[in-house]
Amino acid sequence: MSDLPILLLSGPNLNLLGSREPHHYGTDTLDDHVVTARRTAERFGLALDDLQSNHEGVLVDAIHAARTTTSAIIINAASFTHSSWAIHDALAAYDHPVVELHLSNPDGREKWRRTSVISPVATGTISGFKGDGYRLAVEAVAALLGAT
Amino acid sequence: MSDLPILLLSGPNLNLLGSREPHHYGTDTLDDHVVTARRTAERFGLALDDLQSNHEGVLVDAIHAARTTTSAIIINAASFTHSSWAIHDALAAYDHPVVELHLSNPDGREKWRRTSVISPVATGTISGFKGDGYRLAVEAVAALLGAT
Amino acid sequence: MSDLPILLLSGPNLNLLGSREPHHYGTDTLDDHVVTARRTAERFGLALDDLQSNHEGVLVDAIHAARTTTSAIIINAASFTHSSWAIHDALAAYDHPVVELHLSNPDGREKWRRTSVISPVATGTISGFKGDGYRLAVEAVAALLGAT
Amino acid sequence: MSDLPILLLSGPNLNLLGSREPHHYGTDTLDDHVVTARRTAERFGLALDDLQSNHEGVLVDAIHAARTTTSAIIINAASFTHSSWAIHDALAAYDHPVVELHLSNPDGREKWRRTSVISPVATGTISGFKGDGYRLAVEAVAALLGAT
Amino acid sequence: MSDLPILLLSGPNLNLLGSREPHHYGTDTLDDHVVTARRTAERFGLALDDLQSNHEGVLVDAIHAARTTTSAIIINAASFTHSSWAIHDALAAYDHPVVELHLSNPDGREKWRRTSVISPVATGTISGFKGDGYRLAVEAVAALLGAT
Amino acid sequence: MSDLPILLLSGPNLNLLGSREPHHYGTDTLDDHVVTARRTAERFGLALDDLQSNHEGVLVDAIHAARTTTSAIIINAASFTHSSWAIHDALAAYDHPVVELHLSNPDGREKWRRTSVISPVATGTISGFKGDGYRLAVEAVAALLGAT
Amino acid sequence: MSDLPILLLSGPNLNLLGSREPHHYGTDTLDDHVVTARRTAERFGLALDDLQSNHEGVLVDAIHAARTTTSAIIINAASFTHSSWAIHDALAAYDHPVVELHLSNPDGREKWRRTSVISPVATGTISGFKGDGYRLAVEAVAALLGAT
Amino acid sequence: MSDLPILLLSGPNLNLLGSREPHHYGTDTLDDHVVTARRTAERFGLALDDLQSNHEGVLVDAIHAARTTTSAIIINAASFTHSSWAIHDALAAYDHPVVELHLSNPDGREKWRRTSVISPVATGTISGFKGDGYRLAVEAVAALLGAT
Amino acid sequence: MSDLPILLLSGPNLNLLGSREPHHYGTDTLDDHVVTARRTAERFGLALDDLQSNHEGVLVDAIHAARTTTSAIIINAASFTHSSWAIHDALAAYDHPVVELHLSNPDGREKWRRTSVISPVATGTISGFKGDGYRLAVEAVAALLGAT
Amino acid sequence: MSDLPILLLSGPNLNLLGSREPHHYGTDTLDDHVVTARRTAERFGLALDDLQSNHEGVLVDAIHAARTTTSAIIINAASFTHSSWAIHDALAAYDHPVVELHLSNPDGREKWRRTSVISPVATGTISGFKGDGYRLAVEAVAALLGAT
Amino acid sequence: MSDLPILLLSGPNLNLLGSREPHHYGTDTLDDHVVTARRTAERFGLALDDLQSNHEGVLVDAIHAARTTTSAIIINAASFTHSSWAIHDALAAYDHPVVELHLSNPDGREKWRRTSVISPVATGTISGFKGDGYRLAVEAVAALLGAT
Amino acid sequence: MSDLPILLLSGPNLNLLGSREPHHYGTDTLDDHVVTARRTAERFGLALDDLQSNHEGVLVDAIHAARTTTSAIIINAASFTHSSWAIHDALAAYDHPVVELHLSNPDGREKWRRTSVISPVATGTISGFKGDGYRLAVEAVAALLGAT
Repeated sequence: MSDLPILLLSGPNLNLLGSREPHHYGTDTLDDHVVTARRTAERFGLALDDLQSNHEGVLVDAIHAARTTTSAIIINAASFTHSSWAIHDALAAYDHPVVELHLSNPDGREKWRRTSVISPVATGTISGFKGDGYRLAVEAVAALLGAT
Repeated sequence: MSDLPILLLSGPNLNLLGSREPHHYGTDTLDDHVVTARRTAERFGLALDDLQSNHEGVLVDAIHAARTTTSAIIINAASFTHSSWAIHDALAAYDHPVVELHLSNPDGREKWRRTSVISPVATGTISGFKGDGYRLAVEAVAALLGAT
Repeated sequence: MSDLPILLLSGPNLNLLGSREPHHYGTDTLDDHVVTARRTAERFGLALDDLQSNHEGVLVDAIHAARTTTSAIIINAASFTHSSWAIHDALAAYDHPVVELHLSNPDGREKWRRTSVISPVATGTISGFKGDGYRLAVEAVAALLGAT
Repeated sequence: MSDLPILLLSGPNLNLLGSREPHHYGTDTLDDHVVTARRTAERFGLALDDLQSNHEGVLVDAIHAARTTTSAIIINAASFTHSSWAIHDALAAYDHPVVELHLSNPDGREKWRRTSVISPVATGTISGFKGDGYRLAVEAVAALLGAT
Repeated sequence: MSDLPILLLSGPNLNLLGSREPHHYGTDTLDDHVVTARRTAERFGLALDDLQSNHEGVLVDAIHAARTTTSAIIINAASFTHSSWAIHDALAAYDHPVVELHLSNPDGREKWRRTSVISPVATGTISGFKGDGYRLAVEAVAALLGAT
Repeated sequence: MSDLPILLLSGPNLNLLGSREPHHYGTDTLDDHVVTARRTAERFGLALDDLQSNHEGVLVDAIHAARTTTSAIIINAASFTHSSWAIHDALAAYDHPVVELHLSNPDGREKWRRTSVISPVATGTISGFKGDGYRLAVEAVAALLGAT
Repeated sequence: MSDLPILLLSGPNLNLLGSREPHHYGTDTLDDHVVTARRTAERFGLALDDLQSNHEGVLVDAIHAARTTTSAIIINAASFTHSSWAIHDALAAYDHPVVELHLSNPDGREKWRRTSVISPVATGTISGFKGDGYRLAVEAVAALLGAT
Repeated sequence: MSDLPILLLSGPNLNLLGSREPHHYGTDTLDDHVVTARRTAERFGLALDDLQSNHEGVLVDAIHAARTTTSAIIINAASFTHSSWAIHDALAAYDHPVVELHLSNPDGREKWRRTSVISPVATGTISGFKGDGYRLAVEAVAALLGAT
Repeated sequence: MSDLPILLLSGPNLNLLGSREPHHYGTDTLDDHVVTARRTAERFGLALDDLQSNHEGVLVDAIHAARTTTSAIIINAASFTHSSWAIHDALAAYDHPVVELHLSNPDGREKWRRTSVISPVATGTISGFKGDGYRLAVEAVAALLGAT
Repeated sequence: MSDLPILLLSGPNLNLLGSREPHHYGTDTLDDHVVTARRTAERFGLALDDLQSNHEGVLVDAIHAARTTTSAIIINAASFTHSSWAIHDALAAYDHPVVELHLSNPDGREKWRRTSVISPVATGTISGFKGDGYRLAVEAVAALLGAT
Repeated sequence: MSDLPILLLSGPNLNLLGSREPHHYGTDTLDDHVVTARRTAERFGLALDDLQSNHEGVLVDAIHAARTTTSAIIINAASFTHSSWAIHDALAAYDHPVVELHLSNPDGREKWRRTSVISPVATGTISGFKGDGYRLAVEAVAALLGAT
Repeated sequence: MSDLPILLLSGPNLNLLGSREPHHYGTDTLDDHVVTARRTAERFGLALDDLQSNHEGVLVDAIHAARTTTSAIIINAASFTHSSWAIHDALAAYDHPVVELHLSNPDGREKWRRTSVISPVATGTISGFKGDGYRLAVEAVAALLGAT
């Protein structure tokens, strides 16, 4: 089992969580979710780093850097989920587990939100469980890393 | 918190798990997965019933019966995922949590496997984590039922 | 004029009528509708049999049996309306009047509900009149059978 | 119950009924159908006005005028069924029952005849029963107006 | 051979011929073309009536009236070519030759100009020959009427 | 600068403004909007004529007549926006500024309302500003005519 | 060479063969075809079992049971050919030859009959030869089993 | 006016005219049509050469050779009409009039027959007039060459 | 029963059989397959001619010549299967049995290989049985000719 | 009425205005347009800030910051108009008026320029008036803010 | 390194280079380009054969013959690029480098020119460099053959 | 001939070349390719600058700056090739040669990689030659600049 931390990546507009469309995303802030994820990770003896950005290039750079410094990525790419082949290609070059995370179930909303370019390069996907998704995603990573 | 059991429903051909296309679905049998799910449920003080059928009508009947006798449904509808509006309509009339479960990530395979008629009536979806998905799905249900 | 009864066939999930999505389907149960239909039939001196099933095969078998034992079919195929070519083929081999019935107007809802594989093999269609549709459908059959 | 008459609207080319493609529309003339409809209406104590036009604008004007002078509209929009958003918008602004009527079953013919822009603003639809459709449409209106 | 005249119908905006987009339609006016057509008809001993309208309903009414008063129709439906199922249905009920005429070749222009709802009910089509098309269309009618 | 008036054209059902779907179109009547437009025009020393019709042909005729008697057209074609190639062709033959006006933002509503056949022949488009749109459209015309 | 029998599976409505649309399917009954197939099999020293069902689930169960008890499957899935991914998945888990059989040539009929979800998991396909197809299918199986 | 002959090109299977699907193409042979065309040409003082081939390359070669040896091309490309971009490109490099000719009206038949890759490079099109089309096509060429 | 031979036609690139993509087509050469087909034909007292060409026109010419000199055609049109309407039209004018033959199952490969323009004019199709297909195709022809 | 400034946002390549494709965008620079907008704002007693960036993330960050520091946004998103769901989501979380601005009329150009992901979250749209658009957009904002 | 020559294949209408649409293809003739290609080849000690044909079958035959007599193919398939699966299949059976060459950039022209069936079986593609493309293609072949 | 350098632009994830999917892109690093390109440029007396970025905005800014400081651009836009209209617009405003470069042949891979928004604004494209592509691209630029 690796000593490297898990990286939790959050895409554009997720810094507004808690104030934007709470009927879709709940009232918890991104910081609340990061705390949930970190505590779950610590329960399995794992560290967790996090990064939010509205800039596609910053996320791509972060995935590149993570290739040798992290053990897994949990990514909620938000609206980049549907169009960023650059993130897709970066994740395709990442050799560890990738968990795709969505707060709401994309199939229940607008059509363009139903296509993911992240899924083909993700190990697995968790969507629709709102804040609980962060805990489940870390548990999934822990299982994939043999930390359970 | 409800005393009613969780119902784990499995769709067509899942009775062949362990012998059919193991590179997609792994070598564990459906019984192995049911045991995993039940043990996880018991950890949260929950009971778990299970049913597998190759008959769409049997699954619809079971969902109807479950409306008053269960607290949540976990469903891996297999190939019915992509076409059964009858199961969709039955789940739409079910008032408790529904977790959609897939062993493999549908986005990595044939095109017709990427459309789900279950997702619009599911609370959330977990896919791609193979056998671990059963444990994660029960944990998700437990969280939704407030059993955690 | 035939002495054979009319057969009223109801497809999947219609056994839940009265409790499922009443804003679409009203609060009457299927039994209420069958009573309406039967009373209307009797007004024209016609008998009426009924069958509801969530199993496509059961409905196909019933249509086969009806070929020599009934004078007309009224069918609300529910979600099978949009996908069951087996029911389509069975009705194509039925030589008497077929009335397609829908409680709500399919054009006002989700896209997939707008395509009917029953229509091409139906004599006529009645949709959108909720409970009144059962009475109108029997009246239509009576006219088609020359019972008016 | 309203004292205002029902308005029976007929779209383009229906003035040719009886001479045009009788295998689709039968040999009765439009006048024959109007008589059938009026007699049915009178059976329920209702009056019935009628108007046929090959001009889309005339039909739109008539629907506007009908807002305060009629209790319901029965409309066979003929080829305007498939393209006239102007009639669609006019009916959307009409606050009483609207019954869409077709002599033949559109699903059994050319593809472009299968799309209706009238259905989304109609209370219900009756199609495929040829001349009997006029009687059934008035009976449906009578039920919707509580005249039965 | 019939003594009834040919009817030359012209659709919307053709009254502007000579001033509108002359690189597509030439500098001749509609009157010029009618003269050409009439002279050609007279060469075969045929009379020719003409009507231009920007109103779809007026053209439909004219086709109805023409059923018993004309021997053939030449129609340049202009932009109604691509969308008027009312004209399509009116022509389908017309029992004599119908020649579809276009000044320019529709395949060389915008996409929507390539679909004709007139063609399926026309005996033949002549397009792309600008002013000469009027003469050719009358000659085609003459041949179809056995006047050559 | 021309002394000719601006022509404000209004398409089908706009005569119902104020009573039809006020959440989309507001409670002002068309007369209210015409007054707003005229007063704005007068502020720039411009006259303004107006015409509303539910008849496509009437609008086409009006555009033809306007070629030599007006200095600009402001057109809210309502449902004709999406299908009337006859109006498109008439406007294409009009040599002065054309401003397309919509009360509500078409992109926020049904899909068929998102396509405009008017836009390709309009100088510019103003949509979504409800009653203010009339004032803005006249100001835009004034700028285009050099009247500001 | 295996001693296990060939399984001849027939899908929905094929029990009506001989009475349903004889211009497509001929006047022979399914029993007639089974006799033809069995006699051909016996000519190669092979046994042949048969099953017809209108229930998709029954066919899936039969394919599962056939995995260890038969040497090959000949399947005429009728209308399930075009939609049953459950049968597709069951056949994909069957390790012996699968011959897809159709009485008529699907390419000469309605569009929806041209897509087969059986073909991708069939060894080969024989279609269009009516009753002779049963003999040819068994001969194909005999060749595939090395029984010729 | 040029002294060079017109070239009448006929595509694949037209050598079978008179024996193949006479309900579409009539009972005249291709020779009959060539005679009609030649006699019409001679009436205008024009010569006419002809070539039929089932080989796309032979037709392309002939169009190349015709660039300096003919004054116009009349082409009935038969099934090459819908797919041969090689003939399209060859005609695009031909600097004289090109008349596209079809015996039957393509819009009344199978869908693939409705697309023409010849039309965009043709001066004009004549279709649906059966044998009369040959005479009309030569008359059109004569007009285009100023021979009338 | 006819004394005329069967014609076995092979399309482009089939002369490379045995060396090209043997995992799809096997290692037998086209000559091997012709020998198989001829021996099978002789078993039924039938002669068999064969022709392979990479030229579409040569195949069309051969089908024309075969109209009076052969009793049936077996055709493996290879890549022409998917695009040659010229061969389609030629076969449509051939009045004897046509068997479409493919070595591999087209549904298991690239998408463009799944559409056949040959099927609509073939009596039946045999695909997926590799070398055995030649024997089965001749047996099918023998049955169609009443030679069995 | 708010004291906060209006924010004028300009997307990628608009810094090149004046030198890039002047037939579409005119010869004025972006600075010229900003001056026009600011002067118009000042006429209504409003301040105006501006930002141009070729970086999607910079624009998203700016919209976030603008939530509490501005009273309205005018955005010409240039090529991001057609693809940036990140900007869409950011604007959806902005609670004040949003005016979408385009210099040229997108419907008159390439197809991909006709789809806007900004429109569904904009209050209104102004397009096609070149430099005048900036003045009209500020006037629209002033009206929306009640500053007129 | 092989002693066998490179084969330069040119498809339909390229024999017209220099006279056809020079704004797309320049004024050089095909012979000019062949000289350029041969001189470049000789610079690397390589021979170069060339063939132009308007006949698809001739090109397929040439590719077959080239399998043992050439070291590489450079092919400008012209309009066959977009439709000839026969050439695609022939090149798929060729075991040496294949360079696809286009004079103009297909993406800047009509839509149908943007799809290539050659690309999937080519080693690489060079397009848009007009006459320089011939030199670049030979240099690419030389690199692929290790001749640089 | 210009003294300004060529700019070699590389898009997202190309900094990983050598370690990411070497079966597509080879084992050379981007630095290796830059050295190859620079040496080739120097052979023609040209300088070469280079920039790689995972940020779309950085690439757009660089193209703007290059308008006056470079003589040509070689761009491998990687995944931005398929979606970045911002880069498209920036290149459209660049007045010197643009060569689009791809290491692998996009037509042999996933579908979304087959569409390029760069091609319409590129002078020419070179793809599929892996590392050799860099040398060929510089040679193409040298030819376009007249440096050969």
